[in-house]
Amino acid sequence: MSKNLTKREEDYSKWYNELVVKADLAENSGVRGCMVIKPYGYAIWEKMQRQLDDMFKETGHSNAYFPLFVPKSMFEAEEKNAEGFAKECAIVTHYRLKTDEENKGKLIVDPNAKLEEELIVRPTSEAIIWSTYKNWIQSYRDLPLLINQWANVVRWEMRTRLFLRTAEFLWQEGHTAHATKQEAIEETEKMMNVYADFVENFMAIPVIKGIKTANERFAGAEETYCIEALMQDGKALQAGTSHFLGQNFAKAFDVKFASKEGKLEHVWGTSWGVSTRLMGALVMTHSDDKGLVLPPNLAPIQVVIVPIFKTDEQFNQINDLVESLSKQLRKLGISVKFDTRDTLSPGFKFNEWELKGVPVRIAIGPKDLENGTFEVARRDNLTKEIVSNQNIVEHISSLLETIQKDLFDRALNFRNNHITEVNSFEEFQEVLENKTGFVSAHWDGTSETEEKIKELTKATIRCIPLDRVEEEGKCVFSGAKSAGRVLFAKAY
Amino acid sequence: MSKNLTKREEDYSKWYNELVVKADLAENSGVRGCMVIKPYGYAIWEKMQRQLDDMFKETGHSNAYFPLFVPKSMFEAEEKNAEGFAKECAIVTHYRLKTDEENKGKLIVDPNAKLEEELIVRPTSEAIIWSTYKNWIQSYRDLPLLINQWANVVRWEMRTRLFLRTAEFLWQEGHTAHATKQEAIEETEKMMNVYADFVENFMAIPVIKGIKTANERFAGAEETYCIEALMQDGKALQAGTSHFLGQNFAKAFDVKFASKEGKLEHVWGTSWGVSTRLMGALVMTHSDDKGLVLPPNLAPIQVVIVPIFKTDEQFNQINDLVESLSKQLRKLGISVKFDTRDTLSPGFKFNEWELKGVPVRIAIGPKDLENGTFEVARRDNLTKEIVSNQNIVEHISSLLETIQKDLFDRALNFRNNHITEVNSFEEFQEVLENKTGFVSAHWDGTSETEEKIKELTKATIRCIPLDRVEEEGKCVFSGAKSAGRVLFAKAY
Repeated sequence: MSKNLTKREEDYSKWYNELVVKADLAENSGVRGCMVIKPYGYAIWEKMQRQLDDMFKETGHSNAYFPLFVPKSMFEAEEKNAEGFAKECAIVTHYRLKTDEENKGKLIVDPNAKLEEELIVRPTSEAIIWSTYKNWIQSYRDLPLLINQWANVVRWEMRTRLFLRTAEFLWQEGHTAHATKQEAIEETEKMMNVYADFVENFMAIPVIKGIKTANERFAGAEETYCIEALMQDGKALQAGTSHFLGQNFAKAFDVKFASKEGKLEHVWGTSWGVSTRLMGALVMTHSDDKGLVLPPNLAPIQVVIVPIFKTDEQFNQINDLVESLSKQLRKLGISVKFDTRDTLSPGFKFNEWELKGVPVRIAIGPKDLENGTFEVARRDNLTKEIVSNQNIVEHISSLLETIQKDLFDRALNFRNNHITEVNSFEEFQEVLENKTGFVSAHWDGTSETEEKIKELTKATIRCIPLDRVEEEGKCVFSGAKSAGRVLFAKAY
Repeated sequence: MSKNLTKREEDYSKWYNELVVKADLAENSGVRGCMVIKPYGYAIWEKMQRQLDDMFKETGHSNAYFPLFVPKSMFEAEEKNAEGFAKECAIVTHYRLKTDEENKGKLIVDPNAKLEEELIVRPTSEAIIWSTYKNWIQSYRDLPLLINQWANVVRWEMRTRLFLRTAEFLWQEGHTAHATKQEAIEETEKMMNVYADFVENFMAIPVIKGIKTANERFAGAEETYCIEALMQDGKALQAGTSHFLGQNFAKAFDVKFASKEGKLEHVWGTSWGVSTRLMGALVMTHSDDKGLVLPPNLAPIQVVIVPIFKTDEQFNQINDLVESLSKQLRKLGISVKFDTRDTLSPGFKFNEWELKGVPVRIAIGPKDLENGTFEVARRDNLTKEIVSNQNIVEHISSLLETIQKDLFDRALNFRNNHITEVNSFEEFQEVLENKTGFVSAHWDGTSETEEKIKELTKATIRCIPLDRVEEEGKCVFSGAKSAGRVLFAKAY
């Protein structure tokens, strides 16, 4: 099983593709660029959804649902946004099939069922949502409007990869409207912080909060905030974005409100989203050559128990112990699976659960029965220990917390060791090629320089970190004046 | 507010359309036939989802996610299914827009971006799912495969109505595969029973379990089980269906398994679904001329508290009492809203919460402060009573249970009073026109008679009830031999 998994150092990309499939997370479908999210992968996504949804509701947001389709004329209303997505849209042009008279049993598109106006399958929902907000917002009393949607979206990517870049993906998109610029900016920042909190504390992935350059900004936004994570191969991954939309969509869709003073003003907007892409980040941050490594907070199965026995009597004794242990663990909200499949060896099961990333494995055999012990194995660092019957419950409970923390710390260490300050372009290229990771360098602030660096090195500016020190310097490429360092990296 | 709501007896259909919008459940969007589900409506749908999802998981099902698009060749593989949905499909033919050179700022479909094979936006997912199952199923050990998907689907309906019939709707669709026919039939029946349990005990809507005639069967199924509900206007509504697919999809997609005996056999399938249509059933079963009536088990807000006061001191006293009461109610899992909006009168608030169907309203004013009481109003029967401070918590808690039960009983009474046995076609027509509801009549079992009756009366056979008495009789229309009564009705 894991024997067949390509090693990371051999081919990181191949390792990833294989792991996603072998660990039963997802697979390619018969539809170009679209994936099937398998039950085990979907169970992780559900845990992510549930947690994020709670966090959105705690911060005052409600869920709603808007149409999948956007009429072309509505889609093009906010020009920059439309332009940004026009090249990767799935377009519905007809609404009926008919029997192919020349080929019985086959269907063809009915040319008489052409739509008067084409429909775009939403690549993002600003257009359809702001066209709706126009009717929902009249006065300052209707603001702020704080809405989130869980949905599928489609972007016709040419090169796709499971979770990281697929033609259809699942996400949530928040869309809010506010009376003042200040309040909208605060919302944008708040949701970036909610994302950072979630990604760090549930996914155990450290992130850098920052602002995108104009080049990397969401089409139609005034400012894009982001959280950037670092994968094990030294490439960055944008884990979430939160956009301050200014009054762009309000103007495009004529959304105005009467202020307390009775003046008609355009509202201020934000939008923010994370997607099933996070599943890719989860895999690439923690997993190893034996398979998935899941943080306990998101693991569908937190503890798996494997019995080792020869006789029925032994099994019965084990079964009694496991039933009592499972009950106590479940009472603490810990999810437990007792793997009683009788056609598979313990060794096979060990490999399978390692491949699937279950954080803690408990094995119990004849010796343990004699000694009143369990063998407890950690998936993250592959260590084992013998734990007494007496304190197994507390041990497991605190071990899960330890693993969650250790995974984060390990990723944080790796990330921190891969932020390298450079002061020349030679150094820049050298670090990028050999050490990899984030390169912290002075930049002159121009798109021109940014694009040239990208051409030469494939690295992009991941963000201008929010906590950067404002210091004068010289651009690592052009030598022109710089107001501070930004983070470059190759990225997913 | 509710003053402007059309009365049911004036125009039931208009009443429904107005209510859905005024109660903030949903509205029509700028996209033909597609609705926007508003936050209040979506909160009810979320409660339904959560409950159903728990029930699916308790019965051994896992969630997964399959692509939105189905390539035409895959779609047409199961011919009957394809034929059944071909006339109402949204079809994606292109994957890119480009700038309209003759009309700056506008976009047109890029003719160079035509897909080699058209993609159908899923009207249901049997085709895409069975094409996947082919790779997931090799041996009897892979069975049963019990999977559910929460998704949006599109059926290009010409006449649409909020929730009841929309081009895009939200639903869940279960798709299972089994080693034996018997097991697949048991699964089909089990899920029909899960639906009945949910609709009766959470939505407080009584249903009749039955089997569809060949005419009304799901395209591609061998047998369709259904639950049928009755709306206040005497029209039936199909609330959920569960299909025994036989080996139709297994054969169309070549899904075989090696049995224990080592023989290669086609697997047996089922599929089952309920949709946002249930929201329409919820509205039309319980609501009245003042607005929505929600069963407590699905109400986003179960208790609303409206303060009545003149002075700040009064408000502060009320506030203290309400805080303590809310805390105690929330501890019992009861959702409470304290409506402190200061620009609206209590009367306005009463109307608004009636319109929105909150099951219990508590009002508290100066007199109550003096007497240590609350005024408690029931939304379902519009009665009020004065309840002492001492036992308010228990009172509310048991009142919510009472309301849930009373709503069901009221609907059950209405439904039972609207099942009428008839023995002649004159009687059949008379009952259908004047009394309305289900008409229980002998039918000769032919599609021909079924269709003629439909032409003449607009009534269809809603189902052959599972609990019908097998008794010989004469068809109410043709006079030919009949094996038992079936239920006819006009339907949504």
